[in-house]
Amino acid sequence: MMVHPTIATIERRASANLFDASQSVSDSEIEHLVRLATRAPTAYNLQNWRFIAVRSPEAKGRLRALAHGQFKVEQAAVTFVICGALPNAATLPDRLKPCVEGGYMPAGMPSAWQAAARARYGDPRIARDEAVRSAALGAATLIFAAEGLGFASGPMGGFDADGVAREFALEPDELPVMLVAVGRPAPGNWPQKPRRPLAEVLEFS
Amino acid sequence: MMVHPTIATIERRASANLFDASQSVSDSEIEHLVRLATRAPTAYNLQNWRFIAVRSPEAKGRLRALAHGQFKVEQAAVTFVICGALPNAATLPDRLKPCVEGGYMPAGMPSAWQAAARARYGDPRIARDEAVRSAALGAATLIFAAEGLGFASGPMGGFDADGVAREFALEPDELPVMLVAVGRPAPGNWPQKPRRPLAEVLEFS
Repeated sequence: MMVHPTIATIERRASANLFDASQSVSDSEIEHLVRLATRAPTAYNLQNWRFIAVRSPEAKGRLRALAHGQFKVEQAAVTFVICGALPNAATLPDRLKPCVEGGYMPAGMPSAWQAAARARYGDPRIARDEAVRSAALGAATLIFAAEGLGFASGPMGGFDADGVAREFALEPDELPVMLVAVGRPAPGNWPQKPRRPLAEVLEFS
Repeated sequence: MMVHPTIATIERRASANLFDASQSVSDSEIEHLVRLATRAPTAYNLQNWRFIAVRSPEAKGRLRALAHGQFKVEQAAVTFVICGALPNAATLPDRLKPCVEGGYMPAGMPSAWQAAARARYGDPRIARDEAVRSAALGAATLIFAAEGLGFASGPMGGFDADGVAREFALEPDELPVMLVAVGRPAPGNWPQKPRRPLAEVLEFS
């Protein structure tokens, strides 16, 4: 049976640690990657995220210092700071307007979703969870987009979040959720790490 | 230029709301989907997740009641409850053993990563963020895997998390992070919702 290339991409992808520092990623390729990343789903179509493409030597140096000095932040052509924003229900009429104009979403739905979102995110923990969830969905999509465009990627969760927020002037409602280095791989990367047995992670109900 | 099929998958995918209730997904297809979902990256290779495949009529009924009565929970062949677990650094030697045995990870690295993870997740907010992040990365990968296998998917973030934890006997360290309905689509689904302009979500640094 022929395996769909998307399945092959998922099976093949591995987190890269070593990048070829001589290879760049153009600004238009960065734009393409972020356009694709934002195709990820978000609750209520909030799109509560922002992507900072760190690719100048100066900015990479600052980011690397905030990421335990990890080499890949400087070696990769670009490292994305993927931010999630605390959901703001007031943005929904604007986010959903094209769906109403497109003729498929009923005209009263944006205000109903806005009321539901306002109630749901009144709990600050739920609001923070949503910022992390949206940014992680966007990060995963960016990672697969990079793979599809022939780049390697190296996701990072461990960094000085307060430092990144300060150095890269995040808004007060934004959290830096992940860093993802993207570029051409150098030789010597590890293979995909083995996964747990399925019986440990899957339950039928 | 030929577009890589993975890019086409990302561009085409839309959140489905309507499923063909006459179409099933076999247990071996469910296993395939979860095997693929667990190819997603996690911090330290923690793999701190679990997937509950809700596909019996009885379990679907219970889950639907906890998800604002959304029809798709019953109409789709299977709805996955994707759980993130609070990271447990003590699991790392076991998770990383195959990498050491594979000859690429230095023998001392699992204990170093364990110490780093223990320090990092001492803050309960950071630990919870990691549970949400890992589960969301797994959910995104499941969604693209479903697309690659010819299924539609409908992610849901709004549900009674305490109720799901109780009804589906989650462990005390597990959070239900997302529900993802998977099956064959019925006619009438909406197109992918339009995305925000790139200038609002991308910054170069």
